[in-house]
Amino acid sequence: MIDVAVVGAAGYAGIELVRLVLGHPRMRLTLVTSSADAGRRVSDVYPALTGLTDAVFVEPDAAAIASRAQMAFLAVPHTAAMEVVPTLLESSVRVVDLSADFRLTDDAVYESWYETTHTAPELLATAVYGLPELDRSGLEDAKLVAAPGCYPTASILAAAPAFERALAARPSVIVDAKSGVSGAGRSATPTTHFCAVDESLAPYKVAVHRHTPEIGQGLAKAAGGDVAVTFVPHLIPMDRGLLATAYIDVAEGVTAEAAHAAYAERYADEPFVRVHELGRMPATSEVRGTNRAHLGVAVDESSGTLIVACAIDNLVKGAAGQAVQCANAVLGYPETEGLLIPGPVV
Amino acid sequence: MIDVAVVGAAGYAGIELVRLVLGHPRMRLTLVTSSADAGRRVSDVYPALTGLTDAVFVEPDAAAIASRAQMAFLAVPHTAAMEVVPTLLESSVRVVDLSADFRLTDDAVYESWYETTHTAPELLATAVYGLPELDRSGLEDAKLVAAPGCYPTASILAAAPAFERALAARPSVIVDAKSGVSGAGRSATPTTHFCAVDESLAPYKVAVHRHTPEIGQGLAKAAGGDVAVTFVPHLIPMDRGLLATAYIDVAEGVTAEAAHAAYAERYADEPFVRVHELGRMPATSEVRGTNRAHLGVAVDESSGTLIVACAIDNLVKGAAGQAVQCANAVLGYPETEGLLIPGPVV
Amino acid sequence: MIDVAVVGAAGYAGIELVRLVLGHPRMRLTLVTSSADAGRRVSDVYPALTGLTDAVFVEPDAAAIASRAQMAFLAVPHTAAMEVVPTLLESSVRVVDLSADFRLTDDAVYESWYETTHTAPELLATAVYGLPELDRSGLEDAKLVAAPGCYPTASILAAAPAFERALAARPSVIVDAKSGVSGAGRSATPTTHFCAVDESLAPYKVAVHRHTPEIGQGLAKAAGGDVAVTFVPHLIPMDRGLLATAYIDVAEGVTAEAAHAAYAERYADEPFVRVHELGRMPATSEVRGTNRAHLGVAVDESSGTLIVACAIDNLVKGAAGQAVQCANAVLGYPETEGLLIPGPVV
Amino acid sequence: MIDVAVVGAAGYAGIELVRLVLGHPRMRLTLVTSSADAGRRVSDVYPALTGLTDAVFVEPDAAAIASRAQMAFLAVPHTAAMEVVPTLLESSVRVVDLSADFRLTDDAVYESWYETTHTAPELLATAVYGLPELDRSGLEDAKLVAAPGCYPTASILAAAPAFERALAARPSVIVDAKSGVSGAGRSATPTTHFCAVDESLAPYKVAVHRHTPEIGQGLAKAAGGDVAVTFVPHLIPMDRGLLATAYIDVAEGVTAEAAHAAYAERYADEPFVRVHELGRMPATSEVRGTNRAHLGVAVDESSGTLIVACAIDNLVKGAAGQAVQCANAVLGYPETEGLLIPGPVV
Repeated sequence: MIDVAVVGAAGYAGIELVRLVLGHPRMRLTLVTSSADAGRRVSDVYPALTGLTDAVFVEPDAAAIASRAQMAFLAVPHTAAMEVVPTLLESSVRVVDLSADFRLTDDAVYESWYETTHTAPELLATAVYGLPELDRSGLEDAKLVAAPGCYPTASILAAAPAFERALAARPSVIVDAKSGVSGAGRSATPTTHFCAVDESLAPYKVAVHRHTPEIGQGLAKAAGGDVAVTFVPHLIPMDRGLLATAYIDVAEGVTAEAAHAAYAERYADEPFVRVHELGRMPATSEVRGTNRAHLGVAVDESSGTLIVACAIDNLVKGAAGQAVQCANAVLGYPETEGLLIPGPVV
Repeated sequence: MIDVAVVGAAGYAGIELVRLVLGHPRMRLTLVTSSADAGRRVSDVYPALTGLTDAVFVEPDAAAIASRAQMAFLAVPHTAAMEVVPTLLESSVRVVDLSADFRLTDDAVYESWYETTHTAPELLATAVYGLPELDRSGLEDAKLVAAPGCYPTASILAAAPAFERALAARPSVIVDAKSGVSGAGRSATPTTHFCAVDESLAPYKVAVHRHTPEIGQGLAKAAGGDVAVTFVPHLIPMDRGLLATAYIDVAEGVTAEAAHAAYAERYADEPFVRVHELGRMPATSEVRGTNRAHLGVAVDESSGTLIVACAIDNLVKGAAGQAVQCANAVLGYPETEGLLIPGPVV
Repeated sequence: MIDVAVVGAAGYAGIELVRLVLGHPRMRLTLVTSSADAGRRVSDVYPALTGLTDAVFVEPDAAAIASRAQMAFLAVPHTAAMEVVPTLLESSVRVVDLSADFRLTDDAVYESWYETTHTAPELLATAVYGLPELDRSGLEDAKLVAAPGCYPTASILAAAPAFERALAARPSVIVDAKSGVSGAGRSATPTTHFCAVDESLAPYKVAVHRHTPEIGQGLAKAAGGDVAVTFVPHLIPMDRGLLATAYIDVAEGVTAEAAHAAYAERYADEPFVRVHELGRMPATSEVRGTNRAHLGVAVDESSGTLIVACAIDNLVKGAAGQAVQCANAVLGYPETEGLLIPGPVV
Repeated sequence: MIDVAVVGAAGYAGIELVRLVLGHPRMRLTLVTSSADAGRRVSDVYPALTGLTDAVFVEPDAAAIASRAQMAFLAVPHTAAMEVVPTLLESSVRVVDLSADFRLTDDAVYESWYETTHTAPELLATAVYGLPELDRSGLEDAKLVAAPGCYPTASILAAAPAFERALAARPSVIVDAKSGVSGAGRSATPTTHFCAVDESLAPYKVAVHRHTPEIGQGLAKAAGGDVAVTFVPHLIPMDRGLLATAYIDVAEGVTAEAAHAAYAERYADEPFVRVHELGRMPATSEVRGTNRAHLGVAVDESSGTLIVACAIDNLVKGAAGQAVQCANAVLGYPETEGLLIPGPVV
């Protein structure tokens, strides 16, 4: 049993972490911070948690976190994480950071895409990128885990095997991604107004979304060299769910059967990944509320294109669930601990 | 640990039962029936359950159920339940029936509203109505539990305290209820087509819905006499969730504070019920995926009306969760066993 | 042909007015104001209007309105309307005001419910309440029309005939109303965030909504005396559409057929009202995008309750369309001018 | 004024045609067929059309159509169209066919993709493909127009200029398309059940959708040679709206500005097309209910990819509106006649 703090529970990922930690048999929630809700009971702000916790939101404070938790999940915006991480690490608190601050290994890339100065670049070498299915080495006993973004999780899971297993004709991928609105965060903006989103669909941040370099970094690891990434996210009128559809020029002679077999084999031992049989594609509803990633693989032989779709729940496998999965790995627990959640069918 | 069969898992309530049983620490799922899906793996029909069960759907068969399960949840249509219940009871299988067949104590009322002959009226006296918050006497060790309908659950929880505690000026209640589409069942009909339901709202079966006599029966118990029930359900463009808004002429001198206090006291010890503080009303999202019922109480003093809203998840507290709660009571487990599910915020 | 200004087109009702005026054969849009969008082309802010207007939003200014328009639609918040109306009337501009400022005939009631001082109470006697189906006398050549709120429109249309035609046993009505999110306005708030509204349903402002006295005022006119109104609105996860379900104790001996006949006769000559045949209830999708109100009438004889549901589009018959209907009446045009819009089926 | 029949008004495209014809100043609706609804008043089946037509649905019958209409819109399934078209043409009825039967110029391609025999291949040379923005030659006075599918409309509008204007490095395009549920038709199936679609997103018919060869045929015309098309449609939880996102390897040296300028120029004179300024992408809500196509153009210079998104309303520009636009062209009316519909903002 480990004492856990969730820092930044005013946002969707934060409260989803609270939910998962409350159901985790080896984690005890000892601190929950939210500036917006400080002083209020968690179950009053979120009646869905009535009867499950008596916790009261407190202001975020590094010393308090260090004194009450052995592990901290940071569900705060980028830049806020790098302010607090050094203190937490000095206090020997394990950190799983859900922000972007420690995901990119090159601080220059970070500074260019996030248009800010990185204030703790010396920690980038310490941080372990937390996508276990891509690479789980380094996670065990890690001090600092950078949990991936939701888009990179689905995009990398969809495309990495193609580059690892030489299914691609060239180091290039197009990722057309679709996300539910919770991915846009909890702030009330004209963009997240119900009437702006409902019954509509649009691309946004075309080719300039900040998750692009993170996808490139993950795929470079898979490919053993640079991969050109074209990334176009779309906002979909639903609460949760994310689907990345990846398009890759398929290598000469790779059939649909061969591509499918390569994916199936690649993920055969992954407890959270399912590669559907040939001819079946995943729906985001299949993974709603779960830490799962479901993939469908196809090859359009007439155009020579490998098509892989990956569905995740952006708040679970794309955020809180993956953070818990990483924490499990850090702590030497089975990665599935507390995460074998039967997803609702409706 | 008890061996459990879920009969009729092609429908929403049935598969929700599978989901809950899989997460229940003292239940083992030994049989799942579905004529439509017989021979297929549960996790292939419902990929949301991948990794959690190797079960294969089988055809429903009373003998097979009796040989493999000590308790059977029946999630079949009315009339189908009463065909199989006698055999199961003879085989000493405990039954929690989610159909309407054993809810009404008077078979003539049943036959009138359901326009069919009751083929096992002799069992009506054996059946225990499974709304523990109304009356849990008789549930322990019961042979046959009739789990309530979704509308009666919310309606009775909303209105019963008013009659039990003399808050009502007359024995009459108007229930304006609103339900998500899963309440209409899984059959593909013009009425459940996405485009027919989405972005629209309508009353249906006004004053003729079959749940009406069940509400009346429950409230008669609370009132110690007949209560006139006006029941109007509405179909709402959402998957899950049910809200019943009850309107009752308030007794002379009953203030908002007094009415609220009576409700709060009435449900103070109920683990699944929350009465919000005065001035707060429940949203169905608060109880999504949980076995909870959240209530809000108000009095319009100018018109003399007590207004109580009750939100439930129609598939959990309104169906599968309540069935498990009853099964827990039958088996002598805590009612909350396997049902303390942290609800998602989004 | 008349020159028309739409004042306050940053909100939903305002831009809906722009849309209707652009399609009106006898209105010419000469001015559109929006502080938020001043200087931008209407078709850039609202690409849905591309090709239909070259208008550019301007700051609201009474003198400019007076110099360029003979009729002004005010789609501004309450208090903003009463600031500008006196000037416009002095300049002989006809005004149709969609705010609450001139709806209530008694300024004390206004001041109590809106918690502000009425700055132009002397104009209340001039203002004509613009619900033509309740009472169109006074609209012709009116200087100032107070267009009703969306909830009062549906509620009064649903309940007034019961009181006009002695179908009610007592002067009391319960209105359980349900509205799409556009009724909550365009401001981005936690309440209108997609994820807060989607897949959920909740009552709000129970018995304290500001539309309550307006409903009472309209029904008092119908009843020839006070009517007790219990009004409970609910927020529904859809863009548009409003349904009011009214419950009235039915007078002794009034059958369903008699009640239905009374409603059918009452609205027989109304071009925008349809009373469905007995047994059919309206859906909001039937009236989407149109100025129509569709009603369903039922009597629950066992409980003695008259049930009338009225569906409107909150932005058309509940706001912009009704304002145009009133303007037509003021100008001596047929009320249907520019408003015979075939509604989309999907 | 021309007499018009809508054949097959039980489906979404058919009833949308009825709606548009009722609002068309030069068309008179003289016949509406629907086997499912024969004998019922149109306004009873579709109360949204109350007050606008007294039409009664009749059984489809070629002789009746020929005797009462000069122009027939066929909104029937494929194969049903080719059965009736020869008779109609012999009777000198102009035909705009919304089915797939006459879209593909090569009957062998049709037979291969639609897995049926073409029974009127001799008419393929007569049929004019009705996407005016691609090629309007031949439409004037055409006997038979094959109105395009919804996906081809958006896909060709998005990609054709790239090939016409040498913006593409190679004759290949990936189209990732997203459609609302009305595109799946009106039949009630497990796939169109509200709970199956709502809050979910999935690809379907990956690389095997029947609209693929039609897209290829249109782009071949634009490119002057074969274009490899990878087409992946996705089902989105909304009623209406379709967005095609096209990805094309951009030719050496083509900047974002140049690509955008080429598109803007290409469509400068098209009344229904808007190319947004650089940096802005279209939302389907912009074109809801209208015959418009809105495009956004971007170039990802790091990966060398031209990205063009095209939003349409699948039932208007993707079906009924385009059919009316073509009919206007056939009849010598302005293409915009009856189609300048201000779209709703919400």
